[in-house]
Amino acid sequence: MTAAVSTTPGSPADGTGAGPEAGSFDFPAYLEATRLQVETALEASLGPERPESLREAMRYSLLAGGKRLRPILCLAACELAGGDSALAMPTALALEMIHTMSLIHDDLPAMDDDDLRRGRPTNHKVYGEAKAILAGDALLTRAFEMVALRSPQVPAEQLLRVVGELSLASGAPGLVGGQVVDLECEGKDVDLDTLEYIHLHKTGALLRACVLSGALIAGAPAALLGALRTYARGIGLAFQIIDDILDVTASSDVLGKTAGKDLTADKTTYPKLLGLEESRQRAEALVAAAKAALEPFAAEGKAAPLLALADYITSRDR
Amino acid sequence: MTAAVSTTPGSPADGTGAGPEAGSFDFPAYLEATRLQVETALEASLGPERPESLREAMRYSLLAGGKRLRPILCLAACELAGGDSALAMPTALALEMIHTMSLIHDDLPAMDDDDLRRGRPTNHKVYGEAKAILAGDALLTRAFEMVALRSPQVPAEQLLRVVGELSLASGAPGLVGGQVVDLECEGKDVDLDTLEYIHLHKTGALLRACVLSGALIAGAPAALLGALRTYARGIGLAFQIIDDILDVTASSDVLGKTAGKDLTADKTTYPKLLGLEESRQRAEALVAAAKAALEPFAAEGKAAPLLALADYITSRDR
Repeated sequence: MTAAVSTTPGSPADGTGAGPEAGSFDFPAYLEATRLQVETALEASLGPERPESLREAMRYSLLAGGKRLRPILCLAACELAGGDSALAMPTALALEMIHTMSLIHDDLPAMDDDDLRRGRPTNHKVYGEAKAILAGDALLTRAFEMVALRSPQVPAEQLLRVVGELSLASGAPGLVGGQVVDLECEGKDVDLDTLEYIHLHKTGALLRACVLSGALIAGAPAALLGALRTYARGIGLAFQIIDDILDVTASSDVLGKTAGKDLTADKTTYPKLLGLEESRQRAEALVAAAKAALEPFAAEGKAAPLLALADYITSRDR
Repeated sequence: MTAAVSTTPGSPADGTGAGPEAGSFDFPAYLEATRLQVETALEASLGPERPESLREAMRYSLLAGGKRLRPILCLAACELAGGDSALAMPTALALEMIHTMSLIHDDLPAMDDDDLRRGRPTNHKVYGEAKAILAGDALLTRAFEMVALRSPQVPAEQLLRVVGELSLASGAPGLVGGQVVDLECEGKDVDLDTLEYIHLHKTGALLRACVLSGALIAGAPAALLGALRTYARGIGLAFQIIDDILDVTASSDVLGKTAGKDLTADKTTYPKLLGLEESRQRAEALVAAAKAALEPFAAEGKAAPLLALADYITSRDR
């Protein structure tokens, strides 16, 4: 399987290199090491939940693999801001819990009605609708517990700002608002502004919360927070454009979900509005803008992980 | 309609008096004035939500009336702890949002499948299942936004503890955990311990969060927080016993929901396990224990609202 998005020569279409921008930074090693840290911490995060059937449903989706891009973005932003990423780990897990919750609820029969997610039956297919709804609710509230009660050594003022970012990203001003507009637009002709609105809310808001909360935990100054907002907007939209492109060009095997579903549902996508080539160009321009925003903070290679992550997002093939 | 639960002579079976314990405190006036304050604040709380259809679904259930006991408990606990209840209002609204979210999700076809709530069609009956699930999600996240971003003048440390209490009360250790066990027990023989587990989680946890968060905002000492935990446990269980009793004795007209549903669904209730009379006695003993816990803090009539609220809960007829 080749990458759906061709990037500039030297950049890693298969995710095995870090791109020319990252210099001597070993991005694949960083990505894998950080993903493993996140995976281990996620494994340990859902100990005490009761009853067991609820914990099992929560774990089924939370531990279903995936690239863990959101937690990694949070940890990388914390490091860029000069913080100790270990202090940001509980928040990083919280972000993955919120992401997982949104996947579980979006997959429900009343919503996108998906049977497959990451190559496995969706949560409600295994545990039933009631348990899936409740497992989502429990993951969402657990996310706030991670920040408020399981983040030692971080000042309360900073954690409270993180709670604020998480609440905005996961509610009406973020995930939920985007999903509502998305559902309302199904089967309708949608213009580019509306499509962007959907993606900035459905995907962009949580990615923004990832980098902002990581930076907030490190006590980042306003200038860096502003740059990270620009960065998140760029990679958020690019991420979604790539998703649309992959849905057209990749098979279900590679995606681990039902491919071509957007076309079947007569859903508006970037390729449909702009064509494949212009969609690719737009994604690349957004990634370039995202990276440019971080340049003033890129001394001593501190921005290397976030810069490489921006490239990685456009080079992924699933 | 007479009250389903008879209490000691002089206590207000119809909610028009405050009981002997409250002395000269005018409880009905307090209750109505505070309810109106909460109602006005709730009305103003959901301004900026987008899209409009989502805000409408959120408002439909949030502004459906009700006694607003949870916000009032929060404000009253703040006052008992010597705080300014105005500072606790955003948290009081947050608690009502969480309560409303749990009602919306519990009413869904996949869960309790209820058509009526507070005398009106349930949220999913009006807006469809997808919107109802998402309106619930948005109310839950909005609750955390209220505490983290809309509670000026309260120290971050105290607000963070409130976030912690809210997260525990609304997730697996509270509402969600209780609902899961409740659903799993449907149609089964349930013992008293399990029934109590369900109610302590489904109802008790949020009531505890109400009084604890109000007191936390006022900077209450540990001794008072401990007393409020005992108080909340007592009124929480009593509240649920009364609910079970009302389901047996009252009509749908008075309840504003489908009466006798618990019996139809072959659900275990207190009257079923203990009989009506012992259920009533147990509720009264719980209320007495709840009130006794507050005695050490009842100087200068400061506990009058919470003491009267404990009586009110056992004297309500709907």
